[in-house]
Amino acid sequence: MAQAAAFWRPVLARALAGHGDLPVAAAMRYATGGGKGLRGFLVMQGAALHGVAPEAAAWAAAAIEALHAYSLIHDDLPCMDDDDLRRGQPTVHRKWDEATAVLAGDALQTAAFGMLCAPELGPAEARLRLISTLSQAAGMAGMVRGQALDIMAESAAQPLTLDQITDLQAGKTGALITWSAVAGARLAGADERPLTAYGDALGLAFQIADDILDVEGDSVALGKAVGKDAAAGKATFVSLLGLDAARSRAAGLVEAACAALECYGEPAISLQEAARFVIARDR
Amino acid sequence: MAQAAAFWRPVLARALAGHGDLPVAAAMRYATGGGKGLRGFLVMQGAALHGVAPEAAAWAAAAIEALHAYSLIHDDLPCMDDDDLRRGQPTVHRKWDEATAVLAGDALQTAAFGMLCAPELGPAEARLRLISTLSQAAGMAGMVRGQALDIMAESAAQPLTLDQITDLQAGKTGALITWSAVAGARLAGADERPLTAYGDALGLAFQIADDILDVEGDSVALGKAVGKDAAAGKATFVSLLGLDAARSRAAGLVEAACAALECYGEPAISLQEAARFVIARDR
Repeated sequence: MAQAAAFWRPVLARALAGHGDLPVAAAMRYATGGGKGLRGFLVMQGAALHGVAPEAAAWAAAAIEALHAYSLIHDDLPCMDDDDLRRGQPTVHRKWDEATAVLAGDALQTAAFGMLCAPELGPAEARLRLISTLSQAAGMAGMVRGQALDIMAESAAQPLTLDQITDLQAGKTGALITWSAVAGARLAGADERPLTAYGDALGLAFQIADDILDVEGDSVALGKAVGKDAAAGKATFVSLLGLDAARSRAAGLVEAACAALECYGEPAISLQEAARFVIARDR
Repeated sequence: MAQAAAFWRPVLARALAGHGDLPVAAAMRYATGGGKGLRGFLVMQGAALHGVAPEAAAWAAAAIEALHAYSLIHDDLPCMDDDDLRRGQPTVHRKWDEATAVLAGDALQTAAFGMLCAPELGPAEARLRLISTLSQAAGMAGMVRGQALDIMAESAAQPLTLDQITDLQAGKTGALITWSAVAGARLAGADERPLTAYGDALGLAFQIADDILDVEGDSVALGKAVGKDAAAGKATFVSLLGLDAARSRAAGLVEAACAALECYGEPAISLQEAARFVIARDR
């Protein structure tokens, strides 16, 4: 993922440069500075499969990483998940304050849509496809819908069922992961189905792995608190399936994700490896 | 403005429909339901000046009203201006809760960019011009920058100077007002300068009028609290210039705004009337 990041990190850094001493600007750079860069990697690799130049794809990768960072900042707010640590560092509202965190998240979302207008990405129609589908994936048809369902679940009389958790997570984490995987095919105007199937399976496997790490993981390696879901009595894939079945469900999804890319042959190997990494990671 | 709203309100309502019983979806509709609709009106009138069909312009008008509503929801949050009333109704975080307010604002911003992808708006390049310039106007080069400067001013040792207030407000309220005024010219690929000059002058006059209303206005007519700036010891156009000079500064700006549109002749009369209304309003 470091190779992919070498393309999109400079693009993101340039897009967020300037505004000297404003804490909001510093917070935007801080929030996009760490992380695995999974979504950016997916964009770069999916683009490579379709012959999209890395210099072009880097703009879409930078945009999705900015959008993802916005979602983490707001998700960590006291009125949301109330987290003090993210990627081993203080969350934005802990390092600065809540107002700075709200505004930095807001402006990162704005910046993400701006980056998708970059002429470097290619024909106008292709850029509009990315913008329009990102609006679907990030808004009430995707990520925010998942977060809204998550909030409702906290005050629900009954814990969620497996179908409901699956639906919630497809929005909360799945939609952006699938968008990332498919962006290259979309830029090239190619068949989106293989990467959509890959992204959907990967996104769900990713979330199951997250739930497992919340039970088994080490907060130091993870750089964030663990055991929060169990403490809050929240239904998760682990609480509903048990650890073993959750693990084998994740493994099955990863195999499905890999199988979906067989049509691409050898060039898809790094995406298949990434899928296996997602359930093997310790953070 | 009611005539203009008859075009954009149904477009906005359709874009925000669905998601049945989710509080976030209800909050998005609630937050876009009231208000004068000044920004939507500016889009519709600016479009009419350039022969853009109202059915097309309505998408840009709906988008800017969604984006404006997002900014109000987040601006009202306890960590920001901490307001209980907006347009005579409880603010979103008072009617629901803070998490719902954060998410509803987030998703309204996402929806705004989605609406600007609508094919009804015209050629792909024209839509991208609107998206790219909205990202500039709403983000760290515009609105959020103004809000960030506003937050810094609260903890500054010295009250802001007139130049600093003017700069802050050009971002905080000015950038979206100018974007709205210019959108029609931008869609048509026409000369943007007259409407840019109009929007810049109007935006500043609007803010001066707001400062005057905060001193002289009636909280019932305004539908929000008054006297907050003075109580907080914040520098405003009124505190720096005095009431009379603030009034004459606003009047001069409105005349400049009207003069900028003389090249359009009679078709610009309703935009000129709107500028005069902005400083004559009681809410």
